[in-house]
Amino acid sequence: MQRTVERMLRTSPEPPFAAADPLCACIHACVECAQVCTACADACVADHAPALGRAIRLTLDCADICNTASRILSRQLEPDLPVVSMTLQLCAAVCDACASECARHAEAHAHCDVCAAACRRCMEACRTLLSTKVE
Amino acid sequence: MQRTVERMLRTSPEPPFAAADPLCACIHACVECAQVCTACADACVADHAPALGRAIRLTLDCADICNTASRILSRQLEPDLPVVSMTLQLCAAVCDACASECARHAEAHAHCDVCAAACRRCMEACRTLLSTKVE
Amino acid sequence: MQRTVERMLRTSPEPPFAAADPLCACIHACVECAQVCTACADACVADHAPALGRAIRLTLDCADICNTASRILSRQLEPDLPVVSMTLQLCAAVCDACASECARHAEAHAHCDVCAAACRRCMEACRTLLSTKVE
Amino acid sequence: MQRTVERMLRTSPEPPFAAADPLCACIHACVECAQVCTACADACVADHAPALGRAIRLTLDCADICNTASRILSRQLEPDLPVVSMTLQLCAAVCDACASECARHAEAHAHCDVCAAACRRCMEACRTLLSTKVE
Repeated sequence: MQRTVERMLRTSPEPPFAAADPLCACIHACVECAQVCTACADACVADHAPALGRAIRLTLDCADICNTASRILSRQLEPDLPVVSMTLQLCAAVCDACASECARHAEAHAHCDVCAAACRRCMEACRTLLSTKVE
Repeated sequence: MQRTVERMLRTSPEPPFAAADPLCACIHACVECAQVCTACADACVADHAPALGRAIRLTLDCADICNTASRILSRQLEPDLPVVSMTLQLCAAVCDACASECARHAEAHAHCDVCAAACRRCMEACRTLLSTKVE
Repeated sequence: MQRTVERMLRTSPEPPFAAADPLCACIHACVECAQVCTACADACVADHAPALGRAIRLTLDCADICNTASRILSRQLEPDLPVVSMTLQLCAAVCDACASECARHAEAHAHCDVCAAACRRCMEACRTLLSTKVE
Repeated sequence: MQRTVERMLRTSPEPPFAAADPLCACIHACVECAQVCTACADACVADHAPALGRAIRLTLDCADICNTASRILSRQLEPDLPVVSMTLQLCAAVCDACASECARHAEAHAHCDVCAAACRRCMEACRTLLSTKVE
C-alpha cells in the first residue's frame, strides 16, 4: 500500500507540503496504526480482563487520532502548517501512551505486543516528519 | 441533543474527567461543528469558486478533528490527560483557522457564515474546558 | 443543534436531495446516536461485565456507521441515491441490533437504557427518510 | 501492512468471523481505498475543475464508507453478520460508483486513474469476502 500512497502524492496537482519520503512513511504508519489499534481494542474486550481497561481506552483514542492524522496528511492543498504540526505532536503523544500501556500486557496478550510495535513505529514516523520539515 | 450528552455522562460508572457543564458543552459544540463543517465543505464544492479552495481544505480538516475530539471527550474511563489537553488545543486551533477563513467568504456564501459561527463556538468551548480543568 | 443543521441545508447552493424536515431529523438523530454509542461503549468497558461484550461490539459499530451516515446525509451535491439508500438501510439495521442488545442490559446499566432509546430514534429517523423519498 | 493485519487476526482471542485470507485482503483494500479517496478528493479540489464535482462528492463518501468498513471488519467479537454483510454490499456499491466516476476523468487527471484502480480492487475484495462466507 505504501506504493499507492506515493502514487497519490506524485499525481496531486499540489506539491507535497513536506519531503515526500517521510510524509509517505508517516501516512502509511498512521493508517496501519489505526487499523491495528481498532483490532487490539476488540481483542482486549474479547479477553474480558479488567486490567485491560486502560488499554481499551487508549487503543480507541489512538485509532481515532491516527485515522484523523492520516486524512490531514493525505491533503496537500493549502495546509495550515501549525494545525498539521499539532496533529503530528498529538499523534506521537497518543501513540507513545498507547505503546507504553500495551507493552505492559504484551507477554500475556500477543495482540498488545503487535499493537505496541505499530504504535512505536507511528510515533517515530510522526517525530521524523516533524523534524524534517513541518515547523 | 445536549440533554442526551448529559444523561450519558451522569449514567457512566466513571465520574467525568472534568466539570460536567463545560465538558457537555464542549462535546456538543464539537459534534455540531463536525456536522456543519462537513456540510460547508460540500456547499463550497458546489459553489465552484476557486477562491474557496482553502475553505474546503480547512472545513474537511476541522470536521475530522472535531469528530475525533467529540469521541475522546465522550470517554470517561482512565483518560490520558495530556492527550485530552492536546486534543482540545488542536481542536481550538483548527476551529480558529477555519472560522477565520470562512469569515472571509461569509458575505458571498451564507453557509460560510453559519460555519464560521459554529467554529467560533467550538473554539470557545474547547478553551473554556481547557481553562476549567484539564491541565 | 437541529437549528444549525437546518440552516446549513437552507444555505447550500444545492437543493436538499430529500424533503428537508425528515432529512434534518435524520442527520440530527445520526449525530446524536454516534455520540451516545461512543459514550455507551466506554461506560460498558468501565462496568467490567463480561455479559456486555456484544453491547460493546455493537455500540462501536453503531457509532462508526451513524457517523458515516451523518456525513453522507450532510452532503447535497450530486448524491448517488442507491448509495444513500443503502447507507440508510445499514444505519437502521445496526441501530436496530444495538437497541435490542442494549435494551437487554437497560435495567442493570442505565447508560444502556439511554443508548437503546437513541438507537431506536435513529432507526426510526432512517426509516422515515427512506419512506419519504430516497430510493 | 497486510502482514500486520494478519498478525492482529491471528493473535485475537476470537476466531475470525470469515476465512482469514479474503478477510485480511478486504481489510487491507478498504484501508487503502479510504486513504486514496481522501487524497483524490483533495487533488480534485486543487484541480479547480467544475466537472470534478461529482468525483469530489463520491471520493469523500467512499473514504468514509471504506474507513467504517475497515473498522467493522477489524472486529472479531460477536459480529452481527447481517450488519457486516450490508456493510460489505454498501462498500462495494460506493466503490463501484466512485470507480466509474473517477475512470471518466482518468486521462485528464492521473490521480483519478490511481483512485479508480483502488476503488475497483476494494469493490472486488468486498465481493470476494461476501461470496466466501458472510451472509
